[in-house]
Amino acid sequence: MLEDLKEATLEANLELVRRGLVLYTFGNASGIDREQGLVVIKPSGVDYEALKPEHMVVTDLAGNIVEGDLKPSSDLKTHLELYKAFVSIGGIVHTHSENATAWAQAGREIPALGTTHADYFHGPVPCTRELTDDEIDGDYVLNTGTAIIERFAEIDPLAVPAVLVAGHAPFTWGKDPRDAAHNAVVLEAVAKMAFMSVLLNSQCGVSQSLLDRHYFRKHGAKATYGQD
Amino acid sequence: MLEDLKEATLEANLELVRRGLVLYTFGNASGIDREQGLVVIKPSGVDYEALKPEHMVVTDLAGNIVEGDLKPSSDLKTHLELYKAFVSIGGIVHTHSENATAWAQAGREIPALGTTHADYFHGPVPCTRELTDDEIDGDYVLNTGTAIIERFAEIDPLAVPAVLVAGHAPFTWGKDPRDAAHNAVVLEAVAKMAFMSVLLNSQCGVSQSLLDRHYFRKHGAKATYGQD
Amino acid sequence: MLEDLKEATLEANLELVRRGLVLYTFGNASGIDREQGLVVIKPSGVDYEALKPEHMVVTDLAGNIVEGDLKPSSDLKTHLELYKAFVSIGGIVHTHSENATAWAQAGREIPALGTTHADYFHGPVPCTRELTDDEIDGDYVLNTGTAIIERFAEIDPLAVPAVLVAGHAPFTWGKDPRDAAHNAVVLEAVAKMAFMSVLLNSQCGVSQSLLDRHYFRKHGAKATYGQD
Amino acid sequence: MLEDLKEATLEANLELVRRGLVLYTFGNASGIDREQGLVVIKPSGVDYEALKPEHMVVTDLAGNIVEGDLKPSSDLKTHLELYKAFVSIGGIVHTHSENATAWAQAGREIPALGTTHADYFHGPVPCTRELTDDEIDGDYVLNTGTAIIERFAEIDPLAVPAVLVAGHAPFTWGKDPRDAAHNAVVLEAVAKMAFMSVLLNSQCGVSQSLLDRHYFRKHGAKATYGQD
Repeated sequence: MLEDLKEATLEANLELVRRGLVLYTFGNASGIDREQGLVVIKPSGVDYEALKPEHMVVTDLAGNIVEGDLKPSSDLKTHLELYKAFVSIGGIVHTHSENATAWAQAGREIPALGTTHADYFHGPVPCTRELTDDEIDGDYVLNTGTAIIERFAEIDPLAVPAVLVAGHAPFTWGKDPRDAAHNAVVLEAVAKMAFMSVLLNSQCGVSQSLLDRHYFRKHGAKATYGQD
Repeated sequence: MLEDLKEATLEANLELVRRGLVLYTFGNASGIDREQGLVVIKPSGVDYEALKPEHMVVTDLAGNIVEGDLKPSSDLKTHLELYKAFVSIGGIVHTHSENATAWAQAGREIPALGTTHADYFHGPVPCTRELTDDEIDGDYVLNTGTAIIERFAEIDPLAVPAVLVAGHAPFTWGKDPRDAAHNAVVLEAVAKMAFMSVLLNSQCGVSQSLLDRHYFRKHGAKATYGQD
Repeated sequence: MLEDLKEATLEANLELVRRGLVLYTFGNASGIDREQGLVVIKPSGVDYEALKPEHMVVTDLAGNIVEGDLKPSSDLKTHLELYKAFVSIGGIVHTHSENATAWAQAGREIPALGTTHADYFHGPVPCTRELTDDEIDGDYVLNTGTAIIERFAEIDPLAVPAVLVAGHAPFTWGKDPRDAAHNAVVLEAVAKMAFMSVLLNSQCGVSQSLLDRHYFRKHGAKATYGQD
Repeated sequence: MLEDLKEATLEANLELVRRGLVLYTFGNASGIDREQGLVVIKPSGVDYEALKPEHMVVTDLAGNIVEGDLKPSSDLKTHLELYKAFVSIGGIVHTHSENATAWAQAGREIPALGTTHADYFHGPVPCTRELTDDEIDGDYVLNTGTAIIERFAEIDPLAVPAVLVAGHAPFTWGKDPRDAAHNAVVLEAVAKMAFMSVLLNSQCGVSQSLLDRHYFRKHGAKATYGQD
């Protein structure tokens, strides 16, 4: 079942490896079939070199395993919360990529400092609040999703397809797993450049006009970038 | 038509990939045939692995497509403005290379801190002013070229073959596409070292004498570097 | 003798090379057979490319060479002290990996700033005090071990399987040589991210709840990460 | 003539490329035959991929070309000055490696912050004073050598086989070209770690005892590191 989505989900996981975003088994990517309400996700703690499409785990949106012999990623419940709340997304990626994670650990949003950022993220990449002790001691992985959703109360998740979980690491998403992985790779480059820029000039940042210009150059009805 | 220039332009684009200056489809290189007044440029948003000489787009200096089935780079108008204003250059490169872009995002010129810089850039690598909202909302890509040209009112573009566009990223140029790509690669190394140097000593910089000595060691009638 | 342990010890040394943690012949890994009380360790100053299992040196816990034609790693006595004091560990790794060493040189412990850290280290990665002149002029390598053990007087070495030796570099350990090398690789990533995070926010850090949650997610009777 | 030295000099140049210390044609290595008083050096501005032993240029200590069709490295006179003043060295390397050059551009010596440094450099890696305008306008390359020698008036060049030329980049040396290249590679790692350490703790540094212990562990009559 869902062979194409399994293939696409595996490929998104492997893109993270190729781009240097994951160490050992850190990180995971998933995809959703909206019609069937089924999610395909990487299994927990399996070496990437050994991963094949048939290792992908299929669950429903309540987290029940529908197919697969392996345990799903330990971050499954965060993915499910995001799929339920952000109904237009089709893929999610979580990594501990070094530069984006450095910002998450610092508890700082990544400000929009240039057009590379603006081409992908229509505003700062937000950082969640810290979870409370009760949230951590309770259903922690689910509560991570809740904190992300709370942070996006006034942000369109498709316009800013990334978040930093405070003290943890980034999640990104997109219209499918490939798109989510692409956003994770760009976020990492954006995070690296922003680190250097803020050390060079703590006051820097782009204007709303430039942010709009670059974002809408690549997104929406009037996009002009790339071939048709 | 312009087969050699297409080949050279493709090769300049690929050099950017080999040296780690571009991520996905970011960045573009172009070349100009001054006799015919025709520009060869990379198409927009096409994977580098798939690029062949015949994919290069040929335009005139007004931006009319003379040959090619693909849309040209979205930065075409910036390239055209520079070719029209800087009549001695034969190639232009634009990247979002991480270190140079970090300086552009910080809105800071890269000061001449050493002989690596002086071998290539006869003075600081300047940063443009920010564009106004009107310039951004208007013919933005063309206005980016205008801001660069304005910044070089009192700088010889061949003596300083690079610029940082504030809040955006670098452009470099040279006598041909290969030379422009070479300058982009060196600029990235210079930007990385300058970042570290200013963190170690915010007051550092080379003397005008040393800047002259190294620049003219590699450029002009009295150059002594390399074989004849 | 101890063919499996020699193979595992060699493999741990090679993992350090593959992950970019060692330059030239820097670094060493060892393993212990607790039943026989014998330690297998890399020889001193031999190129990694030339290393074979039979080059590994076997010593007893007093440092007497039991098998092997080559001199053991110059850090042997530190390894032996740790094996004697930390009776539950089975492998030790020492590197001069750049990011962890930068913290050791700074004389600063690596604070627990995020879940990547918490997944492996249940608290800050401590830094030893500086050795006295007498300790340096005396049995320096042994005294390095003593200083580490002193630092762990109130820390469980299995819960925090890494230390920074002030002015020197990290040691890591684990249940076997492979595990010790794995911890060295993760420590290096954690050190790199922590460097960036503290520059972005000198006050950052995770709560005890989050530290506990992530550490016990991967360790102990209630661990949930990975396949069974 | 001097076939072995040509081979060793080429190999030292190639080691710089393999270790990522040179960009394009930057950098050069040389070796000296003390009996004949002849120096073998890389030619100027030739691609490393194309370099063969027969391209090496042979000169006497006055800089006269004794053999070779190509022009020698533009830094030849600095090499010759060092060979004349430091009579116990057999090889010299010059690079613009990024981390060491960042310190040179900052005009700061690299302090001895740890044992990696102490294993190779028995004290800080010094930085020359800036050259005067007259020295730059005069025999600049020779005067660079003079400034290095002046800086080593009270330093044993074999105990500290590296220098930073202010506003320029490092030179390293050793008993032969291979040793000089090895020192250049270690200097680059030491420079990178020192950059991070001083940002983490501006007051750090090792004791004289530790500096002595590690330096003499690898050097002199009582060295214990490596195989005999």
